[in-house]
Amino acid sequence: MPHIELPAGLPGIRGPMAFSPETARPLNDLVNVLLRSNAHQPESGLTEGERELIATYVSSLNDCFFCQTIHGAVARHHLGDDTGALVEAVTCNYQDAAISPKLKALLAIAGSVQQGGKSVTPAQIEAARLQGATDHDIHDTVLIAAAFCLFNRYVDGLATWAPEDPVLYTYRAQKVAEYGYTHEDHYMPT
Amino acid sequence: MPHIELPAGLPGIRGPMAFSPETARPLNDLVNVLLRSNAHQPESGLTEGERELIATYVSSLNDCFFCQTIHGAVARHHLGDDTGALVEAVTCNYQDAAISPKLKALLAIAGSVQQGGKSVTPAQIEAARLQGATDHDIHDTVLIAAAFCLFNRYVDGLATWAPEDPVLYTYRAQKVAEYGYTHEDHYMPT
Repeated sequence: MPHIELPAGLPGIRGPMAFSPETARPLNDLVNVLLRSNAHQPESGLTEGERELIATYVSSLNDCFFCQTIHGAVARHHLGDDTGALVEAVTCNYQDAAISPKLKALLAIAGSVQQGGKSVTPAQIEAARLQGATDHDIHDTVLIAAAFCLFNRYVDGLATWAPEDPVLYTYRAQKVAEYGYTHEDHYMPT
Repeated sequence: MPHIELPAGLPGIRGPMAFSPETARPLNDLVNVLLRSNAHQPESGLTEGERELIATYVSSLNDCFFCQTIHGAVARHHLGDDTGALVEAVTCNYQDAAISPKLKALLAIAGSVQQGGKSVTPAQIEAARLQGATDHDIHDTVLIAAAFCLFNRYVDGLATWAPEDPVLYTYRAQKVAEYGYTHEDHYMPT
């Protein structure tokens, strides 16, 4: 049961976002800029699939079921990962996953950010640069990882409800890919 | 030295915000809604001083010098804490600080959020309610604490520069209290 009385039937972060629309607006604005690169940051080298993988990885480190499941589903959508094997490989042991050396180096930075900002080392930054990461890639990786340290805590700190049926996340992921992130439910299953 | 090339001379979070204005906008929108209650959430029971104390406390737990110093300065401004003794008492041992039992109960929740969302316990929520905390107070406390787990990681994960002179923070705090949070520097010392 959630720690506060939230609108019924809304999974994960959507309950607190409906409870507090004035904070939901900048939170959705932030995640739309950070994760939907094609619309907002065409100059950035990170694809939407890579951004969602970073979000999923950090959410798995924070053990947030709702966030890792929905962002894992959005990552699968972008990456054509129909079986979910790639997303699972990234969250289990990304060093062995079929992703680029650059993304592996950025995931190492994201993992340090999850522990705390000061855990990021110059050696990790240098390793990412050697694999072609730009200042923008490093900036966005740090901010995505930091943002999910917020979202994961918001979702679990209020003990929100999350459905277990993976079909719901797959459906939602398709809509997120199409319309972006929002706390409104005009495209949810009826 | 920062991990990426940031505009020179901007302390703390303002360097990354100038580097990435498209993410700075929603981040500033969020903190203005969350911390400047009188302008946006007049129905909420938490004062601006109390909100800034929660932000300062979480930033101290995350050992973020820039955030705890600037938000401590803003808290001092709102609370008339000229010597800084109250803010110091809150970050050192808030149980003995001259603050309300309700705020102490909310700081306990904030401290759990800093560790991770799942660390918040029903007993902590119940203790806050017994001291008069509403659903909105609990919501805002969780989100302020979660948000500073983002801001602290953004500031330190990029190894940003922070000035040591406390006069600069006091000056900035007065301007923040007057104009709100922004990454633009039209009101900085020349």
